Amino acid sequence: MSKVSIVMGSDSDLEIMSQAAKVLEEFGIEYEMKIISAHRMPDIFFDYAKGAKDRGVSVIIAGAGGAAHLPGMCAALFPLPVIGVPIHTKTLSGVDSLYSIVQMPSGIPVATVAINGAKNAALLALKMIAIDNDGLLDKLAAYSENMKDEVSKKCEKIEKIGYKEYLKSMQ
Amino acid sequence: MSKVSIVMGSDSDLEIMSQAAKVLEEFGIEYEMKIISAHRMPDIFFDYAKGAKDRGVSVIIAGAGGAAHLPGMCAALFPLPVIGVPIHTKTLSGVDSLYSIVQMPSGIPVATVAINGAKNAALLALKMIAIDNDGLLDKLAAYSENMKDEVSKKCEKIEKIGYKEYLKSMQ
Amino acid sequence: MSKVSIVMGSDSDLEIMSQAAKVLEEFGIEYEMKIISAHRMPDIFFDYAKGAKDRGVSVIIAGAGGAAHLPGMCAALFPLPVIGVPIHTKTLSGVDSLYSIVQMPSGIPVATVAINGAKNAALLALKMIAIDNDGLLDKLAAYSENMKDEVSKKCEKIEKIGYKEYLKSMQ
Amino acid sequence: MSKVSIVMGSDSDLEIMSQAAKVLEEFGIEYEMKIISAHRMPDIFFDYAKGAKDRGVSVIIAGAGGAAHLPGMCAALFPLPVIGVPIHTKTLSGVDSLYSIVQMPSGIPVATVAINGAKNAALLALKMIAIDNDGLLDKLAAYSENMKDEVSKKCEKIEKIGYKEYLKSMQ
Amino acid sequence: MSKVSIVMGSDSDLEIMSQAAKVLEEFGIEYEMKIISAHRMPDIFFDYAKGAKDRGVSVIIAGAGGAAHLPGMCAALFPLPVIGVPIHTKTLSGVDSLYSIVQMPSGIPVATVAINGAKNAALLALKMIAIDNDGLLDKLAAYSENMKDEVSKKCEKIEKIGYKEYLKSMQ
Amino acid sequence: MSKVSIVMGSDSDLEIMSQAAKVLEEFGIEYEMKIISAHRMPDIFFDYAKGAKDRGVSVIIAGAGGAAHLPGMCAALFPLPVIGVPIHTKTLSGVDSLYSIVQMPSGIPVATVAINGAKNAALLALKMIAIDNDGLLDKLAAYSENMKDEVSKKCEKIEKIGYKEYLKSMQ
Amino acid sequence: MSKVSIVMGSDSDLEIMSQAAKVLEEFGIEYEMKIISAHRMPDIFFDYAKGAKDRGVSVIIAGAGGAAHLPGMCAALFPLPVIGVPIHTKTLSGVDSLYSIVQMPSGIPVATVAINGAKNAALLALKMIAIDNDGLLDKLAAYSENMKDEVSKKCEKIEKIGYKEYLKSMQ
Amino acid sequence: MSKVSIVMGSDSDLEIMSQAAKVLEEFGIEYEMKIISAHRMPDIFFDYAKGAKDRGVSVIIAGAGGAAHLPGMCAALFPLPVIGVPIHTKTLSGVDSLYSIVQMPSGIPVATVAINGAKNAALLALKMIAIDNDGLLDKLAAYSENMKDEVSKKCEKIEKIGYKEYLKSMQ
Repeated sequence: MSKVSIVMGSDSDLEIMSQAAKVLEEFGIEYEMKIISAHRMPDIFFDYAKGAKDRGVSVIIAGAGGAAHLPGMCAALFPLPVIGVPIHTKTLSGVDSLYSIVQMPSGIPVATVAINGAKNAALLALKMIAIDNDGLLDKLAAYSENMKDEVSKKCEKIEKIGYKEYLKSMQ
Repeated sequence: MSKVSIVMGSDSDLEIMSQAAKVLEEFGIEYEMKIISAHRMPDIFFDYAKGAKDRGVSVIIAGAGGAAHLPGMCAALFPLPVIGVPIHTKTLSGVDSLYSIVQMPSGIPVATVAINGAKNAALLALKMIAIDNDGLLDKLAAYSENMKDEVSKKCEKIEKIGYKEYLKSMQ
Repeated sequence: MSKVSIVMGSDSDLEIMSQAAKVLEEFGIEYEMKIISAHRMPDIFFDYAKGAKDRGVSVIIAGAGGAAHLPGMCAALFPLPVIGVPIHTKTLSGVDSLYSIVQMPSGIPVATVAINGAKNAALLALKMIAIDNDGLLDKLAAYSENMKDEVSKKCEKIEKIGYKEYLKSMQ
Repeated sequence: MSKVSIVMGSDSDLEIMSQAAKVLEEFGIEYEMKIISAHRMPDIFFDYAKGAKDRGVSVIIAGAGGAAHLPGMCAALFPLPVIGVPIHTKTLSGVDSLYSIVQMPSGIPVATVAINGAKNAALLALKMIAIDNDGLLDKLAAYSENMKDEVSKKCEKIEKIGYKEYLKSMQ
Repeated sequence: MSKVSIVMGSDSDLEIMSQAAKVLEEFGIEYEMKIISAHRMPDIFFDYAKGAKDRGVSVIIAGAGGAAHLPGMCAALFPLPVIGVPIHTKTLSGVDSLYSIVQMPSGIPVATVAINGAKNAALLALKMIAIDNDGLLDKLAAYSENMKDEVSKKCEKIEKIGYKEYLKSMQ
Repeated sequence: MSKVSIVMGSDSDLEIMSQAAKVLEEFGIEYEMKIISAHRMPDIFFDYAKGAKDRGVSVIIAGAGGAAHLPGMCAALFPLPVIGVPIHTKTLSGVDSLYSIVQMPSGIPVATVAINGAKNAALLALKMIAIDNDGLLDKLAAYSENMKDEVSKKCEKIEKIGYKEYLKSMQ
Repeated sequence: MSKVSIVMGSDSDLEIMSQAAKVLEEFGIEYEMKIISAHRMPDIFFDYAKGAKDRGVSVIIAGAGGAAHLPGMCAALFPLPVIGVPIHTKTLSGVDSLYSIVQMPSGIPVATVAINGAKNAALLALKMIAIDNDGLLDKLAAYSENMKDEVSKKCEKIEKIGYKEYLKSMQ
Repeated sequence: MSKVSIVMGSDSDLEIMSQAAKVLEEFGIEYEMKIISAHRMPDIFFDYAKGAKDRGVSVIIAGAGGAAHLPGMCAALFPLPVIGVPIHTKTLSGVDSLYSIVQMPSGIPVATVAINGAKNAALLALKMIAIDNDGLLDKLAAYSENMKDEVSKKCEKIEKIGYKEYLKSMQ
C-alpha cells in the first residue's frame, strides 16, 4: 500500500501542512511527517529524499516558503511525484514561494498547488494513488459528492432565508 | 495500461503542448490529443471530461493561456489527476495563466507546472503512472541518468576547452 | 421585466456580493441569489447557467476569488451579459481573481469590475437593462445626482470647518 | 435601434480598436468611431460624452493605454454602459491600462475586458443590446455555434492527422 | 503670492492629504482644500480645475486611489503644475493608484510622488514656488537643516546608548 | 532667466533623454545636458548637484534606469525641484526604475513622470517655471491648443474616410 | 581585525537592523552602528562612507526601505563589500526596496539579502571576513551545526508526538 | 591565494556567466568554471559544493534562472560566501530567478546581484577577497578610477558636441 511523506523545512509551516495530514487520515492513507531543511541539514535531507522510495513512499508533499527549494530538491532525488505547497510569506505574500516551486527546469517537475494549498496537495496525492486503486477512487467520489451536498445546502438556505438572515447566521 | 489525455483550448497552444506528446511517445505511453474549448463548446467539453475515465484515461494534461479555465474545469469533472500547463501570453507573460490554474479552491486540485512546461507535465504524468508500474519507473531512472550524463559532458567540455571556445561552438 | 442573477461559489463571498443585492433592491429590480460552485457541482452549475435565460434572467453577476472560473463559465453558457466580480484573496490580494476573470479568450467576454466591486456590478447591470428602459434610466440619473450632492456637501463642510475639525468629526 | 460609439484617445490604438468595428459590422449594428482625448481636448471630450445619449448611442466602447482615463471619464458623463479596453503598453504590458480602467470607484462602473480585447468589447456590447432584442440574440447564438464548429473541426483534424502533420499545416 | 490647491475625490483620503496642508501651514503658504470627484461630479470638477488659475492657484496637489483619474484630469485642464499623490488601496496596495497617476500620455505630465506621499507633495509644491521666491527657498533650506539635525541626534544617541537602550526608548 | 539641467548616468539613456532637450529648445529655454553617474563618480556628482543653483539652474531633470539613484540623490543636494524619468529596462521593464525614483522618503520629493517620459519631464519643468513667467505660460497654452488640433484633425479624418482607409494611410 | 559597519537611514529600521548587531556580538566581531541618511544629510553620509575604510571597516551592512539608495551610495564610496538589506514597506511590501538595492548598474555591486534579512546580512559579512580567518570559519561551522541540531530535534519531536501535540506545544 | 568558482546549471547561462570570468581574468584571479545542475545531478553537485573549500575556492558565483536553486544549495553546502546571479527568463523576466535566489531563509545567506549581473558578481567577489588583500584593493581602486574617467569623457563629449552629434556618433 502506498505511503505519503509530508515534509517541511520549519515548524512555522506546520499549521498549514497539518491540513494535508488531516485529509490523509480521513482517507486512511498511511503517511510520515518530517521537519527537514534542505538548506540547514543537506546531508540528512539527501538521505531522507533518496531513501523515501525504499520506505514505501509513493508521493512526497513538500511545503516551503520564500526561496522555497525543498520541493524542487525532493524532485531531484525522489523518482516518483513530488507535490509542492508554496507557503504564504509576510514580505512577498507567497509569490516568491510560488515562483521558486513552480518554475522548475525541464526534466524535474514539481506538481504545484495553490499558495497554502496543503489540503489540495493531499487530495492530489490521493488522486495519484487512485490511478491504480479503485477503492480509493470510490472514496474520492464520495468525498466529491459530499462537497457538492454542502454547497447545495448553502444554496438552498440562502434561497430560503435570504442573504440578510444568512449573513447574520454566519457571525 | 494507463492512457494520458492531452487537451488544449486552441491550436495556438499546440506547439508547446506537442512537447508533452513527444515525451509520452518516447516512453511508449498511449495518449489522446484533443483541441476542446471549455468556453466555446462547454457541452462537448463536459462529455470529454466526464467520459475520459471510461476511455481509459489516467491523467489529463491540460494547457491553457489567459483566463485559463480548462485545467480547473477538467479537475471538476475528472476524478483522477489533472496537470495544468500555463501557456505564455503576449500581454501578461503567462502570469495570468499561472494564477488562473494554480490558485484552485479547496477540494479541486490542479497539479501545476511551469509556464510553457508541457515537457515537465508529461514527465509528471509518467511519475504518477509509475507509482504502480515498476517498468516505467526503470525507464524514468534511465531518463534521469541520461540527463545527468548530458550535463556532465558539457561540464567536461567547458573544463577542457574553456568558455571562449565553448561559446564559439554554441553559435 | 428583466431579472438579475447573483451567483457566487462560496458563502465566504456573500458579504461582498450582498452589496449587489442591496443596490438591486434599492432600484426595485427583481433578482435571484445563488451559491453554486462550477468546480464542486459542475452539473448543477450547468443547469443553472443554461436555464437562466428561461428563468427570465437578463444579466448574471458572478463573484469569485482565486482561480475564479465562475464568471467565465457563466459566459460560456449564458447568452446575455455576464458581469464578473473579482473577490479579494488573502494570498494574492485578488490579482489572481482579477486576471482569471478579465483575461477571457476571444469570443467569450466577461464584463469585469474592480476587486470587491459588487456594488458597481449591480449598477452596471442596471445600466445594461436601462438601454431599453427609460424609467430605470431616470432612476439612475437620480442616483448619480444624489452621489454628486453627497460629495458636494462634504466639500462645503471641509471648506467651512477646515480639515482639523473634519477629521475629528470622522472619528 | 441602438448605436455603439467606439472611441480612443490616439490613432495608435486604432489597429486594436478596429477589431470592435469589424464585429459590429458583421452583426449589422450601427456605430460611430472617434479619436478624442480626454486629456488633450477635455472640452470636446465633454461634449462628446454628454451628447452621446442624444445621438442614439446605447453603449460606449473606449480603448486606452497607460494612465487610461478615457473609459472612466466616459462613465462619469454617459448614463448607459461603458466598456473599457485596456491597450497593451510597451513599458508595463498593459497592467497600467488594466488597473486604470478596472479599479473604478464605487458608483461609476466600467465594464472591463481583457488587455487588447476589443473584439470581446464589441461582443459584450451586442449582448447588452440583445437583452431587449431577440433578433440580435439569435445572431449571437449563431455566432457561438460557428465558434464551436471551428474548434470542433480543429479537434477532428488533429485526431485524424496527428500533431506533427497539424503543426506542419500551420506554418 | 502663490496659492496651492489641495483636492481629493473622497474624504477617505483626507487623513493622508491633510499632511500636505500641515506642511503648507508650517511654511505660511496659502492654500484651499476641496473634496471634488472627477467621476461623481464632472461639471463641478471642470469648473474647479478651469477656474483654479484665476483663483490664484499656482500648483494643484491631487490625491486619488484606485483608478485615480483626478490628478490626470486636473493636468488636462489646469495649465500650471499638478502633483499627484497615489493613495494606498486595500486591494492593490496603491500600485493601481500609482500606475493610474504616473503613466500619463505625452503632453500632459503629472508630477507623481510616493504612495501616500502627501507631505512630499507639499514640499515639492514649495520647491516649485521657490524657483522665483528666495524667501521661501531660505525657509526650505532651514527645513532641510532641521531634518539633518534630527537624524544627527538619533545617530549620536545610538552611538552613545547602543541599540538595546535605543529600542527600549522607542517603545 | 531660469535654466534647466538635464542629467543622466549613462549615454545609453541619451536617446530617451534627448526628447526633453528637444522640448526645451522648442520653447527657447536654456539648458545644460550632462552625463554624470552618482555611482561611478560620486565626487563629481556632488559638485554638479551642489553647484547647480549657482549656475542658474531652476529645475533638474534626471533620467535613470534600474536601481535609479540619480534623481533621488539630486533631490538630496539641490534645493529646487528635481524631476525623475524612470528609464525602461530590459529585465524589469522599468518597474525597478519607477519604484527607485518615486518611492522617496519623507522630506526629499522627486517629481516622477512616466517610464521613458522625458518629453513630459520637460513640459513639467516648463510648467514649474511658468508659475512666475506669463510669457512661457502663453507658449504652453499655444502648445496645448496645437495638441488639441492635431487630435481633432485625426478625428475628422477617421469620421471622413473610415478606419479601413485610415489604417492603410498609417502604414 | 575586521570591523563591520551597520548603517540605516532612519530609526524605524532599527528593530530589523539590530538583528545584524546581535549576530555580530554572538561571534565577537567588532561593529559600529549608525543612523545616517544619504538623502537628508548627504555631506555627513559622504564623510561616513569615505572614511569607513580608515576606521577599520571591512564590510558595510546598509538597511533601507522604499527608494532605498543608502546601500548603493555606500557601494559608490566604499571600496570593500557592501551588503544591502531591503526593509519591508507598508505600501509595496519591500519590493520597492528590493529593486532599488539589487538592480545596481554594472561596476557598483551591492550584495543583496532577503527583505528584512538583517540576520543573514550579518552571517554573510562573517563569511566574507572568514575568507582569511580560519578561527571565524570554525565558529561559523559550529553555528551551522547548531542550526542543524535544532531542526533535527524538531523532526524527532514531531515524529514522536505527532502534529496534533506539536501544534499544541507551539501555542 | 583565493580562487573563485563560477558555476551554472546549464550552458544556456554561459553567455551571461562568462562576463564574470572575463572580469576575474582582467584582475588576474584564478577561477574554475563548471556546468553542474543541482537538479539533474544532485550527487555530483554535492561533491562539487562540499569539496570547493578544499580545492582552494574562497567564493562561489552561481548563476541560475527560473526556480533557481543552485545558489541557495551552494550556500547550504559551502561555508564561505556564495554570490547568486539571477538569470533573465523568457516567461517571467527573471523575477522568478531573483525571488528564488534572494529570499533565502535565516541562516543561509546568498549575496544576490542584479538580474544578469554576472559582471557585478565578479566585482563583488573581488571586493570580498580584497578585505585581506591590499594589492587587489589597489587594482579595484584603479578600476573604479577608470570607470569614472570613461563617464567623464562622455560628459565632456556631450557638452562639446551636443546631443544631436552625440546620438549620431553612437549609431
